[in-house]
Amino acid sequence: MDLANIYKQFQADITYIEQELTRTLAAQHPVLREAATDLLRAGGKRIRPVLVLLAGKFGTYDLERLTPMAVALELIHMGSLVHDDVIDHASLRRGHPTVKARWDNRVAMYTGNYIFGHAIETTKVFHDQRVHMIISNAMNEMCRGEIAQIHDQYRWDQNFRTYLRRIKRKTALLIAVSCELGAIAAGAPALVQQKLYQFAYFIGMSYQIMDDILDFVGTNEQLGKPAGGDLRQGHITLPTLYALRTDAQLKEMLQRELTEQTASDINMEPILWRVRDSGGIDYAQMMSDRYLQKAHAALHALPECEAKMYLTQVAAYVARRKY
Amino acid sequence: MDLANIYKQFQADITYIEQELTRTLAAQHPVLREAATDLLRAGGKRIRPVLVLLAGKFGTYDLERLTPMAVALELIHMGSLVHDDVIDHASLRRGHPTVKARWDNRVAMYTGNYIFGHAIETTKVFHDQRVHMIISNAMNEMCRGEIAQIHDQYRWDQNFRTYLRRIKRKTALLIAVSCELGAIAAGAPALVQQKLYQFAYFIGMSYQIMDDILDFVGTNEQLGKPAGGDLRQGHITLPTLYALRTDAQLKEMLQRELTEQTASDINMEPILWRVRDSGGIDYAQMMSDRYLQKAHAALHALPECEAKMYLTQVAAYVARRKY
Repeated sequence: MDLANIYKQFQADITYIEQELTRTLAAQHPVLREAATDLLRAGGKRIRPVLVLLAGKFGTYDLERLTPMAVALELIHMGSLVHDDVIDHASLRRGHPTVKARWDNRVAMYTGNYIFGHAIETTKVFHDQRVHMIISNAMNEMCRGEIAQIHDQYRWDQNFRTYLRRIKRKTALLIAVSCELGAIAAGAPALVQQKLYQFAYFIGMSYQIMDDILDFVGTNEQLGKPAGGDLRQGHITLPTLYALRTDAQLKEMLQRELTEQTASDINMEPILWRVRDSGGIDYAQMMSDRYLQKAHAALHALPECEAKMYLTQVAAYVARRKY
Repeated sequence: MDLANIYKQFQADITYIEQELTRTLAAQHPVLREAATDLLRAGGKRIRPVLVLLAGKFGTYDLERLTPMAVALELIHMGSLVHDDVIDHASLRRGHPTVKARWDNRVAMYTGNYIFGHAIETTKVFHDQRVHMIISNAMNEMCRGEIAQIHDQYRWDQNFRTYLRRIKRKTALLIAVSCELGAIAAGAPALVQQKLYQFAYFIGMSYQIMDDILDFVGTNEQLGKPAGGDLRQGHITLPTLYALRTDAQLKEMLQRELTEQTASDINMEPILWRVRDSGGIDYAQMMSDRYLQKAHAALHALPECEAKMYLTQVAAYVARRKY
């Protein structure tokens, strides 16, 4: 089970949105055009546009109204991806950015800004105060999440709540808002809007926790990079948080061995095995499943229709993703 | 002649705007609050809010309507300052960012995003499509300007037009838009809006050219840093562009000696003297003055009022600034 069925059903509409994305980012400046085109070529699952379309089916489905919503949300997502790459450790040589990387960093930052700017511009067609508030709130919360993530790096004494709030801001909120805005654009009833928001929020939480699990259990091939990258960079996710609770010596070990200075040299395997042995993976899997159950419960409250079946498929995809 | 007189006349209104800025950036996250407070403490001339207020005098002056405009524009300016600091050479040690600087860079980027987000949020009170278009266009043009600036670094064969377009995007446009939006918020006639826009655009161009001149002729004390910083970083401004036209050997010298690799070690004095001796400073001064004359011409077309006198003072301030 993957999302191929949904893509097939909505192929024409997704293609239309894709064209709008291309058109929106067709900048005149060569550097920008290049950066933006790379990003579009990279593809991505377009999960946010798909959710906008699916949510739109719960009201009056109008592609012309749904498209700018989908484009804006995907642009916000793309802009945040570009900003994530700024001062990425991958572009460091012996812990120092190369001249090229430094140049790229600034370009990446301004390209991100440019994409955000176009996201804002795209939403201007909606003469709806609430839509603007939802979008700007989501963008601000994402910033808060990013800053919290930096602030919390290598802080071994954080708690589960800190983690959950961080992934809410970083991931779940924009996904939740995708469903909410699709429903709003289609004029779906308030209760439907609310349930769709909840569904997508729970899906987003479940998805991010799975993502954090995969960083411990995925193969190099699945991840496209060695396992343990998050922890190496001091990002403490649910499996590690659980392990820290049950394994008293782990905190000491992490404090002693894992710092930003040692990050690029340390052998992560002994640490990763300690986390895997702690039961942290099972615990995180249980939490991810619990969010998935909540997503299904939210779905249950929605009227029966074809789109509801597709949303069930989205939930199933999140449950089974392995990469 | 400085801006003190204007600040005095508008003291209560500027204080009110200042409070709104503080309130807007009173984030809950400690890192953000700290960064934002630092920025507010740093002060700045608040030239954009002042222009909003002055332009507002050409229509129905309503502080409640002008304030969100002024706040949004100052936030955009502040956000761009924060982003300018990302990967600043000042935070480099031997050409490599320190660990602290690297952390700070990401925080600076997200703080900038956060401030931009609040700028957008602030403009939401205006149910005016045109206002939104003007603001998002200005933000996008600023991004384009920033990217062009990076793209054009160390490119010794660029022309005057490239330079003028770059400073328009980087500086003049947001200043022009400050006057335009003040006039729009006050419901001033279309011709008045247009003339105020032109006035501020010309002032902004004149100001930036002066700024670029000061980097060659200012003392360490006036600049707060050694002269020639722009050129050292490969930013080619009007005096250098003029010098490159008249001094055939300069281009060779720059190509040979000034690259990003040598930037932190090279003795800039011989190069700076060549630019100073070329007549490039006088030429740039002449261009700056020409924009100032155009600003006065735009002002001439505006109805007589007290605010017009203050705008004349703003023009005089730009003409005489030495730091």
